[in-house]
Amino acid sequence: MGSDLKGNAVIGQSGGPTHVINQSLVGCVEVLKESANVEKILGAHHAVRGIINEDFIELQDLPQDVLETIAVTPSSALGSSRDKPDDEYCNKIFQVFEKHNVRFFFYAGGNDSSDTCRIVNEKAKQAGYELHAFHIPKTIDNDLVCNDHTPGFGSAARFVASAFIGDNLDNRALPGIKINVVMGRHAGWLTAAAILGRKDENDGPHLVYVPEVAFDPVKFCQDVDAIYQKHGRCLIAVSEGIHDAEGNPIAAKLAEQQGHHVERDAHGNVQLSGSGALGDFLAQEIKNYLGKKTRVRADTFGYTQRACLGLASPVDQTEAREAGREAARQALAGDFDGSIAIQRTSDNPYTVEYKRIELTDVAAKTRTLPLEYINDENNNILDSYKDYLAPIVGELPEFGFIPGT
Amino acid sequence: MGSDLKGNAVIGQSGGPTHVINQSLVGCVEVLKESANVEKILGAHHAVRGIINEDFIELQDLPQDVLETIAVTPSSALGSSRDKPDDEYCNKIFQVFEKHNVRFFFYAGGNDSSDTCRIVNEKAKQAGYELHAFHIPKTIDNDLVCNDHTPGFGSAARFVASAFIGDNLDNRALPGIKINVVMGRHAGWLTAAAILGRKDENDGPHLVYVPEVAFDPVKFCQDVDAIYQKHGRCLIAVSEGIHDAEGNPIAAKLAEQQGHHVERDAHGNVQLSGSGALGDFLAQEIKNYLGKKTRVRADTFGYTQRACLGLASPVDQTEAREAGREAARQALAGDFDGSIAIQRTSDNPYTVEYKRIELTDVAAKTRTLPLEYINDENNNILDSYKDYLAPIVGELPEFGFIPGT
Repeated sequence: MGSDLKGNAVIGQSGGPTHVINQSLVGCVEVLKESANVEKILGAHHAVRGIINEDFIELQDLPQDVLETIAVTPSSALGSSRDKPDDEYCNKIFQVFEKHNVRFFFYAGGNDSSDTCRIVNEKAKQAGYELHAFHIPKTIDNDLVCNDHTPGFGSAARFVASAFIGDNLDNRALPGIKINVVMGRHAGWLTAAAILGRKDENDGPHLVYVPEVAFDPVKFCQDVDAIYQKHGRCLIAVSEGIHDAEGNPIAAKLAEQQGHHVERDAHGNVQLSGSGALGDFLAQEIKNYLGKKTRVRADTFGYTQRACLGLASPVDQTEAREAGREAARQALAGDFDGSIAIQRTSDNPYTVEYKRIELTDVAAKTRTLPLEYINDENNNILDSYKDYLAPIVGELPEFGFIPGT
Repeated sequence: MGSDLKGNAVIGQSGGPTHVINQSLVGCVEVLKESANVEKILGAHHAVRGIINEDFIELQDLPQDVLETIAVTPSSALGSSRDKPDDEYCNKIFQVFEKHNVRFFFYAGGNDSSDTCRIVNEKAKQAGYELHAFHIPKTIDNDLVCNDHTPGFGSAARFVASAFIGDNLDNRALPGIKINVVMGRHAGWLTAAAILGRKDENDGPHLVYVPEVAFDPVKFCQDVDAIYQKHGRCLIAVSEGIHDAEGNPIAAKLAEQQGHHVERDAHGNVQLSGSGALGDFLAQEIKNYLGKKTRVRADTFGYTQRACLGLASPVDQTEAREAGREAARQALAGDFDGSIAIQRTSDNPYTVEYKRIELTDVAAKTRTLPLEYINDENNNILDSYKDYLAPIVGELPEFGFIPGT
């Protein structure tokens, strides 16, 4: 089997970095290296921007030991970009591909990236230019449709779970009210990972707020008050993307109230990460409600969630590598384009398969956390979510309390 | 050798939790368990508060496997307290000791805790009551005198170094200006750990601000501007405790400017942690200086620095365990009180010894980062600091760039 198509390959890494996107890069490169049909393997420096600027890094001669080191390095080794290519931008990409005889295109990213892949692919088809374009899934948000989960999510979830286990123990030792703000604009998958280490009812997080349901600051304060009265402490997980009943992000409303310039990216998204404002606002709301002497603290986990040395999930690393390999295999195998989807085939033992799906199936769609994982009060995540999450995060180090404390 | 003193032992864990304070607890317990002179080993629930409330947890019968699990668990398994005992409080502690025939007292904590230990010890001496009181060093701030470094610091430094390595790679991939605020009220040891993963001049953090030198917001913006023009990006490490030339913490000035109630603890310290305000303020200062469209982000590492599952330094774990053991050994060996100090005996190979020092030598004193590690411009840490730090943090996972990028 195999296709007759010969030429150069381009690989790009798009969107926010993750702990394991370099595993996908290396997986893709190591399969392409073995093919006689691929001449140069061109890494696009800073994603689509590198393509239109013809800023390429040749990867075909990198020895395996260098590749292995890159694979375990967090963040995007090729660099990323915030550009959201429109039709004209995608046309430029296609022109560069024609010029450089690029016949294989691999783009690792989220749903916007799969859409870029789709548009470039259509340009090629319209021009009768044979191109095998593949999207490699990547997002800590875990919000790609047709996937059980996405490379990058398991490691970010491992960070969130590990940090919450530590912070719950910290909050046990020095009781008070503590808010942790977790990444996640539209989907609460990552915030929900906060519950993974809960062992009993006294363990936090005691409250979890995700963007799948509307957030009401007054109800929030009442929730915190009830837990604080019960346990003498309260640990809270909040998605950065929480919004009111009309869908306005609390973080954006807040910035506008304070007269701050509200930053938006090329996708029109309001800046949520890289600021402690939402956490501080929620802490102040609780102090206003419970009295200013109440000990309330807020941390915002920030970018460390997506790129911290030493906290990658081993399962996530393996799967990201395999997703990269599978994209390369499929692209070489025949007249294919598409996206590689990770689908779970068994829970016990945990197994997955890597399936080719159509680019149009995944592009620009968002998969949110199913409501079945959210409690009736919309302020917590049910333990059934752990069954889904645990195998993706991988085994955590053991920890325990003194019996009777 | 050995003392004839017989009775019960009390162990407490004071101040902020760390990744390894439970190693010290377990080290102390496992040595005491072996002694015929020690009957009960009483864990004080929530430190000094547990003592005066006679809220004890008996530890002498805990099996070794339970102890081993507790040892690797972050935070303070016995619970901590924010109380700062005054003379009267220490008197109550002593009365409880008399009532329960407590003859061995172990208190793990920072310089305030060693002072508590010292005062209780003096009460006992004044009353002619034989007590062997030992302070076990613990602080992520690394600011105890007579110590090369303190248990807890190596693991917190490992977190900070790992997070900065990830964030530098993230900032390489998506360039911009990024501020990370690190714990440290009076001492910059932990913030300085941000540089451990720097490999070349292009690597961040490009600027580091510690409380050992005065902070000037205008100079700060000029520094950032210069780096940003040179590298197209700028990664900055800032201690939460930075202060102006008069010694006023920037965080406290800021809170007062904004009309917020400024929280102070029992020690009179202004709240620094558990808020993103300082980072957000500095980000805004840069935007005001460089233009509001400049991409500036700020994260505050928060409590995860001192208690995150899975990121403890193996060296720190070993040393914290041994400090606990040594305190117990010394207390059993003769008519001793004191504090256990970790002193480096060789750099290569790295070796330390555990020495008994007088409580008065360590109590209520602060050891700041030597100025020899700070550059002439007071905005960076010199690479010589890595020689000091690396063995304490332990070997980090490998990481690397694509050659030529």
